[in-house]
Amino acid sequence: MTDRVEATLSTAEAGSRPRVTACVLIIGNEILSGRTQDVNLSYLAETLNACGIQVTEARVLPDDAAVIIDAIRTCRSGFNYVVTTGGIGPTHDDITSAAVAAAFGRPLVRDAEAARRLKEQYSPDQLNAARLKMADVPEGAELIDNPVSRAPGFRIENVIVLPGVPRILQAMVDGYRHQLQGGTPMLARTLSAFLTEGAIASELARVQADHVDAEIGSYPFVRDSRLGVCLVVRCTDRDALDAATTAVCSMLSDLGADVIVDEAPTR
Amino acid sequence: MTDRVEATLSTAEAGSRPRVTACVLIIGNEILSGRTQDVNLSYLAETLNACGIQVTEARVLPDDAAVIIDAIRTCRSGFNYVVTTGGIGPTHDDITSAAVAAAFGRPLVRDAEAARRLKEQYSPDQLNAARLKMADVPEGAELIDNPVSRAPGFRIENVIVLPGVPRILQAMVDGYRHQLQGGTPMLARTLSAFLTEGAIASELARVQADHVDAEIGSYPFVRDSRLGVCLVVRCTDRDALDAATTAVCSMLSDLGADVIVDEAPTR
Repeated sequence: MTDRVEATLSTAEAGSRPRVTACVLIIGNEILSGRTQDVNLSYLAETLNACGIQVTEARVLPDDAAVIIDAIRTCRSGFNYVVTTGGIGPTHDDITSAAVAAAFGRPLVRDAEAARRLKEQYSPDQLNAARLKMADVPEGAELIDNPVSRAPGFRIENVIVLPGVPRILQAMVDGYRHQLQGGTPMLARTLSAFLTEGAIASELARVQADHVDAEIGSYPFVRDSRLGVCLVVRCTDRDALDAATTAVCSMLSDLGADVIVDEAPTR
Repeated sequence: MTDRVEATLSTAEAGSRPRVTACVLIIGNEILSGRTQDVNLSYLAETLNACGIQVTEARVLPDDAAVIIDAIRTCRSGFNYVVTTGGIGPTHDDITSAAVAAAFGRPLVRDAEAARRLKEQYSPDQLNAARLKMADVPEGAELIDNPVSRAPGFRIENVIVLPGVPRILQAMVDGYRHQLQGGTPMLARTLSAFLTEGAIASELARVQADHVDAEIGSYPFVRDSRLGVCLVVRCTDRDALDAATTAVCSMLSDLGADVIVDEAPTR
């Protein structure tokens, strides 16, 4: 049992560093209209957690400058990092860079290095005013490399601005993640059993009360027409994680269930 | 051309009713950890828009009562409706009902009708204290039927509380949507072409400036290794939608592109 649980440890061992949080701002009318299914949040959540940064809130915002400015101002004081996705392309509805500049009270300026990268990417007749707009960043921003299509993202203080296209966002995050200052990663283990939530709830509440440092999530599922429950134990402290996981496992066994330990890295 | 555009009209004709907005609060650590991919936002966005309610913001919140209470208090005064998903099951991490009650300053009470439905769903030995918790709602709340697993959602003033399991949420929304007071639905039409965003951006900005009542979204795509752009024209006024769509279509044709009119209802 112990060995199999070990295999599900999702991140490096937790240290004694502080909790570092992030809020993800997903910008775009197409997400709010239901046209486009966001997939960036789950990627960012997993990747940032591996860096010791917990995504503790996300907001989906319309292409409305006032709303974006207000959210950036509010969130950048409430979280260690704010990560935005979307709205940094060449078209009129790409207003994130200007909104971030306004939120910081800084001018939007043409970045020479960003323009240089765009000149490498596009021929002179292709590099029109709209495409050059992608070189405009708030004054003082640091560029974030885009290895796919060159137009960079940027960081200004604790706000990180990324595009919405998942393939490009992922490549940029993978290249930039080592420059983030993380704290203690959240560790997670997952146990499943063919029991219903209602059948285990009171015992599970007792286990949770006995292990207050761990956070135990309960998620029902249906597999092969059978109802089951997936229990995810999360904790930044490895010993506390061990103890809570063992207690959950014992509880499930005592209720007569075969406990399934998920082999894949868990979240 | 006109006939094909006609086919993409996504909702009933817009009237002169006011704009009605909703904020969706997606509650659950499993969404923020990246473990679970939310699919409820897109369903709610599409369904509510068909009722004349525009989802203009969404937030993903952790299983943290203080955070949920604060978000409900903030959002219920900023939007016509607040719709929550998740956190109304039988386990200890299901805290939405209690948080909503606290946000309204009302006690959480056992609803007799909800308890009756649970008694029909579960045998006496199955209906334990944890399952009966699903009959607890803020005092004065109106139940929302759950045709799948009976445990109801509820509405209190402009806050609508739904479960997180998509299949159950969808059945509940479909049964309840006719009780919502909508305004003018957002209409949408989609045109696509194998042109890049950068190539059309300046012309598209001109069309947008000429049609300020419409909102034109530009979304790049790759199909059969070719870059393309999908342009979604949204407007609550049908005539303005027609005019803007025609202008976008002319612009794409003038740039030498074959215009692809999406036949499916658009968002």
